[in-house]
This record gives sequence, C-alpha cells and structure tokens, in this order.
Amino acid sequence: MEKVRLDPEILPPMPVTLVGAMGAGRPNFMAAAWVTRVGHKPPLIGVSINHRQLTGQGIRESGAFSLCLPGPELVEKTDYCGLVSGRKADKAALFDVFFGEVAAAPMIRQCPLCLEMTLFQAVDLPHHTFFIGEIKAGWADGDILTGGKPDVAKYKPLLLTMPDNRYWTLGDHVADAWNAGKALKKGEPQ
Amino acid sequence: MEKVRLDPEILPPMPVTLVGAMGAGRPNFMAAAWVTRVGHKPPLIGVSINHRQLTGQGIRESGAFSLCLPGPELVEKTDYCGLVSGRKADKAALFDVFFGEVAAAPMIRQCPLCLEMTLFQAVDLPHHTFFIGEIKAGWADGDILTGGKPDVAKYKPLLLTMPDNRYWTLGDHVADAWNAGKALKKGEPQ
Repeated sequence: MEKVRLDPEILPPMPVTLVGAMGAGRPNFMAAAWVTRVGHKPPLIGVSINHRQLTGQGIRESGAFSLCLPGPELVEKTDYCGLVSGRKADKAALFDVFFGEVAAAPMIRQCPLCLEMTLFQAVDLPHHTFFIGEIKAGWADGDILTGGKPDVAKYKPLLLTMPDNRYWTLGDHVADAWNAGKALKKGEPQ
Repeated sequence: MEKVRLDPEILPPMPVTLVGAMGAGRPNFMAAAWVTRVGHKPPLIGVSINHRQLTGQGIRESGAFSLCLPGPELVEKTDYCGLVSGRKADKAALFDVFFGEVAAAPMIRQCPLCLEMTLFQAVDLPHHTFFIGEIKAGWADGDILTGGKPDVAKYKPLLLTMPDNRYWTLGDHVADAWNAGKALKKGEPQ
C-alpha cells in the first residue's frame, strides 16, 4: 500500500504516570506519559517535562522523583493532575502520600505500582528537560503480583495516545518476547 | 494497602517499534521498546539502544533513523529482529523497505505507521545511548487514518511489558485526556 505523508505530531501509545516531586514546599504530582526505561545497570528511567512545570524545578532542587502508575479508577484524578499546576493547587491532597527509601520522592498509595528514583542526569532540550532517574526501588500492592513480579493483568496500567488524546487499558496478550521469533531464527543462514 | 518492596527491574508497558538504520552497508532493523517522545518544537523522539548494537553505530555514522510500528501480524518478524544481529543476518530481506525524505532512514512498508528522524542528540549512558531524533515526517497506510490522523483502533500497535516479557495489543478506551479531570478542576479553590 502506498504511504500517506503525515505531520510529525505522532506518539505511539505511552504509559500514563504521575510524577511525584517536592514543589512549593510540599509533595506535588503531575501527569506525564513521555516516559521510558533507558538503561539496565544501573536501572535508569527517564521522563520528559516542560520547562514551565513546577515538577522539573522540584526534581532539580531535590535530586529525586517518583513515577506512580494509576489504574483506570484514578483516571479523573490523573487527568486533573495534568490540567492544574502545583503552584495553584495542592494536588497531593487528592491522595495518600507515602515515602520509601528516597527522601523527596513522594509516592501515591492509591497507585498499585510506584517507582522511586534519584536524579541521574538532566538532559536539557529546547522546551523540555528529559530527567533520567536511577530506580532505587519499586513499591507495589501485594495483590498485583504474580510470582513476585507486577502483573499488568492485575494492576491495569493506563496508556495515552496522541494526537487523539485518549486513555486506554492494555488489551490482549499476543505473544511472548524474545521467544515468538525463534522459529524464524532457526531458518536463518548460520 | 501496605506496599511490597520490589527490585528496580520494572517497566511500564512500552510501545514496540522496529528501529531502522543503515548498518553494514545495508538497511537494518532492530526491535526496541524503550522509546518516548521528549519534545514538541522541534518534535523530538528518543530510543535507548545498547552500545553493542549495530543500529547505534549506524545512527551515529549516518545521522538518521526511523521508528516503524508493527501490528500483531508482524509479531514473529518483530521478535526475530530483537533476537538476531544485523551483523549476522540481512533482516531487511524480511520486509519491503522504503525511504521517505531522510536519506539513511529505511522504513518498512508492512508497518502501518513509520516515523523518520534526523539525529538531534546522542545521550551516552553507562551501557546504552539514548538517541534523540527530530521527526521529519510520518508515513501511514491510508486505511489506518481517521480524520487524517493515525487511529490506534485501526493500526493496532503492540506494547511490551517487562520483566514478564510479553507483547500486548491496546485495550479499551477509558476516557479522554485533558478532559476527564475537568469536573475536579471546577471544584478547586481559585
């Protein structure tokens, strides 16, 4: 099929998170989906944050942040945390806030899975900073684990698509990674 | 609920892509899911690639790469592209390769949605490089568009979860972003 040319404002589906950081002297949370793991050893994860955001300022000042994964029942509160600045509203009042091992990385007890990070590197870009954190620990509700690991069928992460701006759940299990392609590998020239 | 402490090897669901770059003198593709948008103006997207990979070398040499989004019907070939090095196999032979406006950014006609980038910045990390590209154009099959924009209900992107290492489709539409939280916003102190 011939391809149609599109403008660049395209985003693959991305995980919805609430980024926790200290801001204006209190725990603050913003919604963000421009998130990815970027390294193994140490375990690194990054989130891109607009220069305007209080959260970026908080991460720079404290050297710490968290990423909490809300389920569908938190979609309204999560979206609200993307609509309103922590300079104007005490968004932490919406949640039970807890801390783990990293000072200044507030997390949300209502989120079934949270990660806490120390700041590893801040990559300055034209309108955003990509904050790379070193994951120090994860914190999960016991009932979302299978064999001691987070099970997406139980914790029901949200995904964001743009430019249609919609939240989604995860769907069906299609195949297993580092496995589904093995049959093709057998047939390859050695 | 009390939280259970987990080791840091956790990944939220991430979009599965095939990264296209020139390598060993020919188009080459590797599977990668550590991908996120990181900027608006210019439109920036990044992918984290292990230092061992031929793809990283190709991106550095050519200053270009692509990200193509496979659907479920390509899951075996996609997984194969994560199992085998382009130094050993001609992975481009699996696909119809095309080029858009960026030289040295090979794309896959069987993928319903592809993006082509010039290299904007390479962020060196301990075992990976986070390659940030400036998106020059998207290329889509006409039948995956709704109102001229890619429609995930039609192009059926794959997601990867780790450490369980499974591929998934996207599920149900939960709510609309920058909208679902408006009711909460109305109730906030002004």
